[in-house]
Amino acid sequence: MLLDALLPDDAAGSAAADAWALIEALYPLCRSLTGDGVRQTLDRIGERIPLIRTEVPSGTPAYDWEIPREWNIRDAWIADVGPGGNGRRVVDFRAHNLHVMGYSVPVRQMMTLAELQPYLHSLPDRPDWIPYRTSYYREQWGFCLRHRDRERLGPGPYEVVIDADLAPGHLSYAESVIPGQGESDDEVLVYTHTCHPSLANDNLSGIAVAVELARALHHAPTKPRLTWRFIFGPGTIGSLAWLSRNEERLGRVRAGLVLGLLGDPGVLHYKHSRRGDTLTDRAAAHVLRGTATHENAEAKLLDFEPYGYDERQFCSPGFDLPMGRLTRSPNSTYAEYHTSADDLTLIRAAQLASALQTLARLASVIDANRTPLNLSPKGEPRLGKRGLYGSVGGGAPGAFEHALLWVLNQADGSRDLLAIAERARLPFEQVEQAASALERAGLLRTLERTEAAPDSESRKKGPPP
Amino acid sequence: MLLDALLPDDAAGSAAADAWALIEALYPLCRSLTGDGVRQTLDRIGERIPLIRTEVPSGTPAYDWEIPREWNIRDAWIADVGPGGNGRRVVDFRAHNLHVMGYSVPVRQMMTLAELQPYLHSLPDRPDWIPYRTSYYREQWGFCLRHRDRERLGPGPYEVVIDADLAPGHLSYAESVIPGQGESDDEVLVYTHTCHPSLANDNLSGIAVAVELARALHHAPTKPRLTWRFIFGPGTIGSLAWLSRNEERLGRVRAGLVLGLLGDPGVLHYKHSRRGDTLTDRAAAHVLRGTATHENAEAKLLDFEPYGYDERQFCSPGFDLPMGRLTRSPNSTYAEYHTSADDLTLIRAAQLASALQTLARLASVIDANRTPLNLSPKGEPRLGKRGLYGSVGGGAPGAFEHALLWVLNQADGSRDLLAIAERARLPFEQVEQAASALERAGLLRTLERTEAAPDSESRKKGPPP
Amino acid sequence: MLLDALLPDDAAGSAAADAWALIEALYPLCRSLTGDGVRQTLDRIGERIPLIRTEVPSGTPAYDWEIPREWNIRDAWIADVGPGGNGRRVVDFRAHNLHVMGYSVPVRQMMTLAELQPYLHSLPDRPDWIPYRTSYYREQWGFCLRHRDRERLGPGPYEVVIDADLAPGHLSYAESVIPGQGESDDEVLVYTHTCHPSLANDNLSGIAVAVELARALHHAPTKPRLTWRFIFGPGTIGSLAWLSRNEERLGRVRAGLVLGLLGDPGVLHYKHSRRGDTLTDRAAAHVLRGTATHENAEAKLLDFEPYGYDERQFCSPGFDLPMGRLTRSPNSTYAEYHTSADDLTLIRAAQLASALQTLARLASVIDANRTPLNLSPKGEPRLGKRGLYGSVGGGAPGAFEHALLWVLNQADGSRDLLAIAERARLPFEQVEQAASALERAGLLRTLERTEAAPDSESRKKGPPP
Repeated sequence: MLLDALLPDDAAGSAAADAWALIEALYPLCRSLTGDGVRQTLDRIGERIPLIRTEVPSGTPAYDWEIPREWNIRDAWIADVGPGGNGRRVVDFRAHNLHVMGYSVPVRQMMTLAELQPYLHSLPDRPDWIPYRTSYYREQWGFCLRHRDRERLGPGPYEVVIDADLAPGHLSYAESVIPGQGESDDEVLVYTHTCHPSLANDNLSGIAVAVELARALHHAPTKPRLTWRFIFGPGTIGSLAWLSRNEERLGRVRAGLVLGLLGDPGVLHYKHSRRGDTLTDRAAAHVLRGTATHENAEAKLLDFEPYGYDERQFCSPGFDLPMGRLTRSPNSTYAEYHTSADDLTLIRAAQLASALQTLARLASVIDANRTPLNLSPKGEPRLGKRGLYGSVGGGAPGAFEHALLWVLNQADGSRDLLAIAERARLPFEQVEQAASALERAGLLRTLERTEAAPDSESRKKGPPP
Repeated sequence: MLLDALLPDDAAGSAAADAWALIEALYPLCRSLTGDGVRQTLDRIGERIPLIRTEVPSGTPAYDWEIPREWNIRDAWIADVGPGGNGRRVVDFRAHNLHVMGYSVPVRQMMTLAELQPYLHSLPDRPDWIPYRTSYYREQWGFCLRHRDRERLGPGPYEVVIDADLAPGHLSYAESVIPGQGESDDEVLVYTHTCHPSLANDNLSGIAVAVELARALHHAPTKPRLTWRFIFGPGTIGSLAWLSRNEERLGRVRAGLVLGLLGDPGVLHYKHSRRGDTLTDRAAAHVLRGTATHENAEAKLLDFEPYGYDERQFCSPGFDLPMGRLTRSPNSTYAEYHTSADDLTLIRAAQLASALQTLARLASVIDANRTPLNLSPKGEPRLGKRGLYGSVGGGAPGAFEHALLWVLNQADGSRDLLAIAERARLPFEQVEQAASALERAGLLRTLERTEAAPDSESRKKGPPP
Repeated sequence: MLLDALLPDDAAGSAAADAWALIEALYPLCRSLTGDGVRQTLDRIGERIPLIRTEVPSGTPAYDWEIPREWNIRDAWIADVGPGGNGRRVVDFRAHNLHVMGYSVPVRQMMTLAELQPYLHSLPDRPDWIPYRTSYYREQWGFCLRHRDRERLGPGPYEVVIDADLAPGHLSYAESVIPGQGESDDEVLVYTHTCHPSLANDNLSGIAVAVELARALHHAPTKPRLTWRFIFGPGTIGSLAWLSRNEERLGRVRAGLVLGLLGDPGVLHYKHSRRGDTLTDRAAAHVLRGTATHENAEAKLLDFEPYGYDERQFCSPGFDLPMGRLTRSPNSTYAEYHTSADDLTLIRAAQLASALQTLARLASVIDANRTPLNLSPKGEPRLGKRGLYGSVGGGAPGAFEHALLWVLNQADGSRDLLAIAERARLPFEQVEQAASALERAGLLRTLERTEAAPDSESRKKGPPP
């Protein structure tokens, strides 16, 4: 069954407005891999959807990695204490939290400009933008500033202060789960990273769209067949932490998406999973570029590559999960990426709304997809006597009758509804409605996972021994 | 061995003239799913080729269907008995048998025009053509008429009479079988529907072309390797009836064709079987569109779809037979389809002739195809000492020598001659002649079905459990 | 490990000069399937590279063939002893060894021109060129001459003499082997034919290029992983003789090339092996036409066909070895082919040099290819702490880091480095360097042949039973 009205047209605008409000609320917080900024972010998300929160202690191993110490910053500045400097803060964390390199160790010292230069980061080509820099895994510190400001710096000396803690603590992530009502315990994962400070598109847009999709699923009048699990955690170490604590669950992952960068003016880009032909990939290709629908004719499909967001971890060869990624402009491909120009002016409510609508349709296709078996496979069954076909012969069948014929013909247990829709060049929804009508007429049943042909719906394949 | 001279150029014209004569003789008969019109049709066919006739009683089950009651019609009319109508027949079955909806129940009553209207069928866009309508499986009645005539009807009242029987009886079909002389008991099926009344292209052209192909096979100087079985029966219920009585035979079906609509001015269209890569499909693609031949460069190959003629039943998932369909204009795609304009003026003897020639070549390829095994597979055997290759070296080989090299190189038991011809980009006939020469020289033998690789020649695959 | 500096740019010119010198030395010798001309040719090759020589007695069986008698020719002529002829040699073997049809039986008799004509071969279209003709397997004799000279012949009589021996002896071939230092005993075969008399491109160019590639491998500072075996033998019967004496070795052949015709002005042509997707095929496609390299954008890839050089035998269905062929102009496609115009003026040192450079890169790719296994497959390993990745985050990775990510992501044991390079659209060398770095860091190991997925590296598949 399709998730009826998961996000009807009239609801999309309202959901996008809610997303926008969440982005505005979250924008000022100083997030990083760990720390109170992340916890406050999860607090706000928890006001919108039910959350299960997890705190993983520093030092906990996660495959080749371990959970780092927790970082919290109170204040930081560079003050000019030279002649005529008057102790003025020439770089001030309170003005923009990008000014401090993420995970900087504490520092408090006097330095000349010459001594300070190696610790400064700016963009000569974009002199008005503050770059975003981090050093999670090597102990160092730094300041990021507008190149224009950097060029105005006098010889100093400067008072350089980073008032931060880097100490044993926890990494925080949260999950929101909508239990599936179908017969299987299969899951769909949605992951979005929460570790970026005041950057609007990357990734408050992704967080807010994920929250609205989760909210729509929590309140959908038709319950989903599959279990949907939304994960809000930091990039890389967050997905590794979740993976390392949920290995027993991975065999159930039937599809999944990494979400991010969904508010900018660019078109939608779907990046394939490592396997390239998983349910997620096929559903995304159908929804974004389906020959029968063309609704997103401008959307683009990207091949998998191992550089990107958390799909890098989910699609590492030891997991190889059926997870793709949905963004608008892909990372690194827009000028404002990872700078202070990725602010609220970069994102649009209409872009959030249309991303949400496409996502809702994609979610509905993933959830409703199943492998049908024709229970009357020898010849065509009589549709007329079951009220599914017109009674006067001689003319051509209508669109619904055509979809009925396609489903009956292809439902041999080797293909799922999505494959049938693609072969028939029909929209998935039309094929699904035909399948539901045939199920009600007793002519079709859905194969359980264990009955279906191995490749008919995407399943995790184990890594090589 | 190729079916030498199955239909040489000088014989095609004569065969087409015979086909035309048969069409003329059959045109006036009122055929339907059942009834004496069908029996008279089979009588005429039986004058041309040997027939085994079957009568299946009404009520006999055929999968989800059952054989309907037998329908016979003697007369039918609508007579204007209103003022000035003079009892004139304004619609008269004796003028055209399309005037009565097929399988109409008997009726005899007086009606006003207003009461009659729901029982009338006409084509406002084609006011001079009578439409063809049927109601096989719901008890109703109706009249079909030219829209121009309908608009002239006065208020009535009308005497409305259909003098027909709808009563327990039989469904009639017939087969003509040419036994194969090869080692296997595999069969090729040819099905053509016999249920249409006075419609020339759909499907007297198909009947007549099938009869001529069967006649050519019955009289071919080289006996076919495979058994050829021609079936003349009504659409849908006829193929279902045959299938339900011949299940034990289906495992032997190596190839097959549904024939119809072969006389109109359109180009040939081959519609693939459900599997899409069966022997029938590959042979048709080679003959109709082969890169090496181009003889039908204008012919078109269509993907399988579940709407159409009796391939719907043969290609249902429970049978999944290797059967394609050959027509000129596909059903529903020409204006005259299923109207009184599909009459003798629509079809051409030259179109019948060229359809027959292509069919004869296709039949010859299907029949001669086999999987060869090189008996001297290590290195090339010495062709020169066997008289198959010129004795002076230094120049390039001729076309026949090239075909010998291709057959020897590819004959590893995994490919049939058709696959070799496609890979070598040579006409099948040239490859087959090379294979025959190598067989005579003791360098090659034909694999039995049980030895051949499973996919090397198309075999029925069982339905899923 | 790549074969570093197998043939650096500055060495290619010198190697090509050596190749040219060898061609000049070999050009005058009268080679054939057997005989002292072949032995002298192998003597000269043996001065450049170590050779293991084999003499196979006449009459030894080789599959459907047997080793022919040995042919040696001392002199041959047609002398005009007619009026005014003065006994002048009008055709003289001492002027060009193409004048005598290869393997001509001895003859000594007086003939009129009319009697002589059936024994003469010339090219009316190319009146100044002497054709190359042979008759290895039927006892006959003949003379080849310029058509212009033939037309000037008087009525004779003529003294016709071929002073040759056709007697039990031996067929001579030689091998040069560079032992592999890797863990497997797999081999790469390189075959080039030695049976053509004074023809420069076909095939002294192939012999000389093979000698220089072998010499580079013998002296490479990095030892090859695989064993490289160069075979110098006559066409057809030579490869059959070698195959029949080395069947136990064939299972180890991982790749191979037939070389010939590498000095003419044409572009490089790689002809695929029979299987079409062997390691040789994939490496050649990558090196000649790789999207990432484009270094030979003008090179052409040819489908396999069973006509050609000794790939006909190596790719016969009973062996089906992973052997392709590298030439410039393919056989039969240039005017001078198999005529006296295929002399030293047809070939160029620069063409020999660039063929050698491409071959050296191809050899290096074949030798270094292997199937890697990621030893830390769950998530990405931390490259930074191993010195393989920059420590400041926020920017995009460089080319080397990108290659590291690709190798780690794809190294699941199902793909070799060449497949990874193709998927990543990176040059093989970059992927191989990344893999070597990961091996040194303990993150990757090479799968042994028995562990690797069956299709991950090309292996001989046995012939059908």
